[in-house]
Amino acid sequence: MSSTTKLEVIVLVFDGFELLDLFGPIELLSFLDEVRFRYVSEFGGSIKNKVGLNLDTEKMTLGEICDILLIPGGQGTRKVYLQPSFINYVKSYAENATYVLSVCTGAVLLSETGLLNGRRATSNKRSFDWVSSTNAKVDWVRQARWVVDGKYYTSSGVSAGMDMVLGFISDQFGQSKAKDIAYKIEYHWQSDSNKDDFA
Amino acid sequence: MSSTTKLEVIVLVFDGFELLDLFGPIELLSFLDEVRFRYVSEFGGSIKNKVGLNLDTEKMTLGEICDILLIPGGQGTRKVYLQPSFINYVKSYAENATYVLSVCTGAVLLSETGLLNGRRATSNKRSFDWVSSTNAKVDWVRQARWVVDGKYYTSSGVSAGMDMVLGFISDQFGQSKAKDIAYKIEYHWQSDSNKDDFA
Repeated sequence: MSSTTKLEVIVLVFDGFELLDLFGPIELLSFLDEVRFRYVSEFGGSIKNKVGLNLDTEKMTLGEICDILLIPGGQGTRKVYLQPSFINYVKSYAENATYVLSVCTGAVLLSETGLLNGRRATSNKRSFDWVSSTNAKVDWVRQARWVVDGKYYTSSGVSAGMDMVLGFISDQFGQSKAKDIAYKIEYHWQSDSNKDDFA
Repeated sequence: MSSTTKLEVIVLVFDGFELLDLFGPIELLSFLDEVRFRYVSEFGGSIKNKVGLNLDTEKMTLGEICDILLIPGGQGTRKVYLQPSFINYVKSYAENATYVLSVCTGAVLLSETGLLNGRRATSNKRSFDWVSSTNAKVDWVRQARWVVDGKYYTSSGVSAGMDMVLGFISDQFGQSKAKDIAYKIEYHWQSDSNKDDFA
């Protein structure tokens, strides 16, 4: 990727997604040039959030290609990870994405697809026992702000997603770009993925 | 305020608001018990954001009462701060709110109402010269993560709003509540309002 590439970001949405899991990463990615965000949910339409937000979404389809797939977590993951039709969509979007980024318990949705089997991944610390119990074939890393394995980036809880996305931007576009974005939003980037004060 | 009070939060929205100025504070406030969020804009209806978000808003009215008024910043402030009808609404909402919290260049909207005259306030550092030039009757504080003067909380840029809101929660509901929320979202709270690495 170059910083002038036109990036397509697809954001998975479901009832009960965690607000900042979504909008923290999106805020940061929006500083890259020519980024287009699309929001998709299993049945399309308006997805409501507990804070009174209605998010308009497209209906998911199989075989769609994107540069970045963003998967938030939240209480809602505990319901949708049990729905094979939803996970089948997640698998298709993940397989066809150049990079896949999950935040918090979004990791369980990715894990259920089987695409993390044999790979290292993390999730938030308060739900870690649950998340890691759902798939023993994943090498779950308890102590990490975020973990990169191939094209898969998985982060710890909520605000860790912002540190991960800056890490992703650093990997793809250079550390100075990531630092510049953090500076613009006056954000203290915790840039060491291995340092985890919440483990 | 007690942590079991039913809180009404009114969020001012306008074209070109900065995403995280809004959703960082809202994420944090949503952890308080029984918080209701309402989104208002001058003409009501859908407010679009550059990230493909449509935010449904109510039309502003004069004389509305709320517990917390949240005013985000963003590029859009440079247009709406010049609109007397909009500023007149902001003044009414601010006068009738128990607390008023502005993030980033949201401070300029509050400053235009005259309600900050003779008070201390801050704004983000990249736009500080512009913001402070708009009203010499405000005691603009350049080096501060956030500033509290009476019922008015004003923060520096974007992510500083999250630190300020945790400071607000700490002031109102106790530091342990603020720390608990920060822990839940695995957020490194920069809790000293006077420490400003971006000044």
